[in-house]
Amino acid sequence: MAEERMPAEKLSFEDFEPGRSFALGPKLVLTEEIIEFASEFDPQPMHLDEAAGRASILGGLAASGWHTSAMLMRMMADSYVLNALCEGAPGIDLMEWRKPVLAGDTLQGHSTVLEARPMRSRPGIGIVKFRHAVENQRRELVCLSENSVMIRMRPTPEDANMSSEPSA
Amino acid sequence: MAEERMPAEKLSFEDFEPGRSFALGPKLVLTEEIIEFASEFDPQPMHLDEAAGRASILGGLAASGWHTSAMLMRMMADSYVLNALCEGAPGIDLMEWRKPVLAGDTLQGHSTVLEARPMRSRPGIGIVKFRHAVENQRRELVCLSENSVMIRMRPTPEDANMSSEPSA
Repeated sequence: MAEERMPAEKLSFEDFEPGRSFALGPKLVLTEEIIEFASEFDPQPMHLDEAAGRASILGGLAASGWHTSAMLMRMMADSYVLNALCEGAPGIDLMEWRKPVLAGDTLQGHSTVLEARPMRSRPGIGIVKFRHAVENQRRELVCLSENSVMIRMRPTPEDANMSSEPSA
Repeated sequence: MAEERMPAEKLSFEDFEPGRSFALGPKLVLTEEIIEFASEFDPQPMHLDEAAGRASILGGLAASGWHTSAMLMRMMADSYVLNALCEGAPGIDLMEWRKPVLAGDTLQGHSTVLEARPMRSRPGIGIVKFRHAVENQRRELVCLSENSVMIRMRPTPEDANMSSEPSA
């Protein structure tokens, strides 16, 4: 059981059982962060300027959706990714920017394991599919996402004896 | 026809005909950019450190997939988004990180219009679905993505007469 792990041990594939949930955030979104990200990656006026944001359908200085996605990644990192044997992700299955993320908003949410299965192409690694839901301080859903992460399995005693086994 | 527009006129919904393609990049990916993005949004070792990257299944200091996605957005901005009457995007329909993006790689590709249709909920705005393909300098596909963008329609002479029409 996960509760019996040594505190220093990282989470492995086996720890990500379907239904398990991890808290994300809180993350306060600062004006200068919105502008900095937009200047580098998405320099549209509504992401750079308060007045332009108010004049747009977003209704205020709004984070680029790609910035919201990157903030989601950071919240995942701080919640469980950095504490797990993660080997990266093959992509994003779903990313919905449901409402604008405005300067001064506070984001929080959770990642829930949808499914977990061993990878056929990479022995010793499993793939875990998550659903991520992020809300603002008014409990409005601002971002809904799903993606899959490759996570190493816990080493077993047999692994030491089978180290010469060819990989598939 | 698009070719008859005045040069100063921005692209509108009508200009994004299915099949039309826009060049993306080139974009040289620098070591310090990879580390800077990862430090803020995805501080996993393979995105922060050359040796850790080589030891990972990515094979070298590799950009976070979320960084690759953000670089795709910037290439879209420089290619056509900033030159069009864009009103933002509701999300990402597909994002596949097919191969690692390593320090020193040069990215380029194209966005192709898959479909374009008027939005029922927002008169005067259409939604354009793109497929984005990004390759490295070896012509390997590193990122395949699809997303939809809201783009304003070209104002018509009737708009001036119908400005009191209630919006649906």
